[in-house]
Amino acid sequence: MGHGRVSLREERRPRAQAVARDQALSASPEVDVRVVLFTVAGGQLRVALPRDGDDVRLPRGTLLPNQALDSEARRIVRDTIGFEEQYAEQLYTLSLQEPSGWVLIISYLGLITDSSDGASSRSDLWYPVDRLPKVVAIDRMVIEYALLRLRAKLGYTTIAFHLLRPTFTLSELQATYQAILGRPLDKRNFRRRVVAAGFLEATGDQHREGSHRPALLYRFRAAHDRETYLTPAWSTDA
Amino acid sequence: MGHGRVSLREERRPRAQAVARDQALSASPEVDVRVVLFTVAGGQLRVALPRDGDDVRLPRGTLLPNQALDSEARRIVRDTIGFEEQYAEQLYTLSLQEPSGWVLIISYLGLITDSSDGASSRSDLWYPVDRLPKVVAIDRMVIEYALLRLRAKLGYTTIAFHLLRPTFTLSELQATYQAILGRPLDKRNFRRRVVAAGFLEATGDQHREGSHRPALLYRFRAAHDRETYLTPAWSTDA
Repeated sequence: MGHGRVSLREERRPRAQAVARDQALSASPEVDVRVVLFTVAGGQLRVALPRDGDDVRLPRGTLLPNQALDSEARRIVRDTIGFEEQYAEQLYTLSLQEPSGWVLIISYLGLITDSSDGASSRSDLWYPVDRLPKVVAIDRMVIEYALLRLRAKLGYTTIAFHLLRPTFTLSELQATYQAILGRPLDKRNFRRRVVAAGFLEATGDQHREGSHRPALLYRFRAAHDRETYLTPAWSTDA
Repeated sequence: MGHGRVSLREERRPRAQAVARDQALSASPEVDVRVVLFTVAGGQLRVALPRDGDDVRLPRGTLLPNQALDSEARRIVRDTIGFEEQYAEQLYTLSLQEPSGWVLIISYLGLITDSSDGASSRSDLWYPVDRLPKVVAIDRMVIEYALLRLRAKLGYTTIAFHLLRPTFTLSELQATYQAILGRPLDKRNFRRRVVAAGFLEATGDQHREGSHRPALLYRFRAAHDRETYLTPAWSTDA
């Protein structure tokens, strides 16, 4: 478990300041839901950081008593990109003392497939993870934590599925893995390993691009057990 | 993500009732930390359920504004069993509407090794997971969720390490896996798989019990990357 308290002042929390007077007297926190939403577009892993005044910040919302947690995370995604995420899991809950009062930050990881119109390359929303703009310290930590989890899960899961279209070539799969890991992978080793892992199946179709030799199309095997890698949501949380 | 709201009334929440009047008017929840603490003793996976009046309940605590989340989880473990857990990770945060008001439940998974004095067999604290006593619905869900995560992690991690002593025979390792999974494993397949997984190393020592042929002692390789399976804590949360 972590050690050492770090002061993480948020630069601007207009809503929190409004309730700061009550918070200071209360033994109850404000509950802040934040979503780290990833996509792979233009060969890069990107994270959604919508503009908020002069800053860019993680998509977020304040949880109210009668709101379900997972639903609120989905709503935040919808408000950010205009449609539902493909995959979301709860990441971690942090308890922080801010100047404005006590805040619980409940973070989510969300994954979406780049749309065919290339909307995920929009440079005013999607930032490459290796060239992040300035964000508050806690947002940067949440992003780094989400990235750590995503990369770790790549090793033993089919989570990359949620960043790809339903069928893909091995080259597209490799490009997605490389974008997530941030480093090139040896083509022969990569193909040997993903075939050996047994989570791919050939569709029988081919993809032809330009004058290249047509490439076989694959899909992830639906039978691969999601429970081994998901952080499943609970049925109490509608 | 989950669907369908389920009403989960807690039968007794004395402290919560005391603050219910404020809660009802407030947009801030009470924050409840609960720890699912597992051990393997007497060949069974057991969970700690301390007595609380007429009930048994998950070890818990109410988080206060100036308390760090992970520290509070550790304190709950210490108060329950008298010493620190070997391993703890945050599991999940639930938002619930109780009759007493809004409650956030932040659950942790904790693992300890059975002590040499057999304290983990104490039947007034440690209950086999396949013969749980009556607990409130939300505690049962949290336990089932923790069990699901623990079993899933067994497939791709060395998490079982935290339920074993530093060195162990392959028979002891298999017994621990069987206790966690709740089913017998084929001895030859099990040995082949754990050796192939590459996370064991022979200590060079042997363990002799009675008139049996001495068994080789193993340890988990320290080099095995914890980041691939831990839900790491954050350094902000002291």
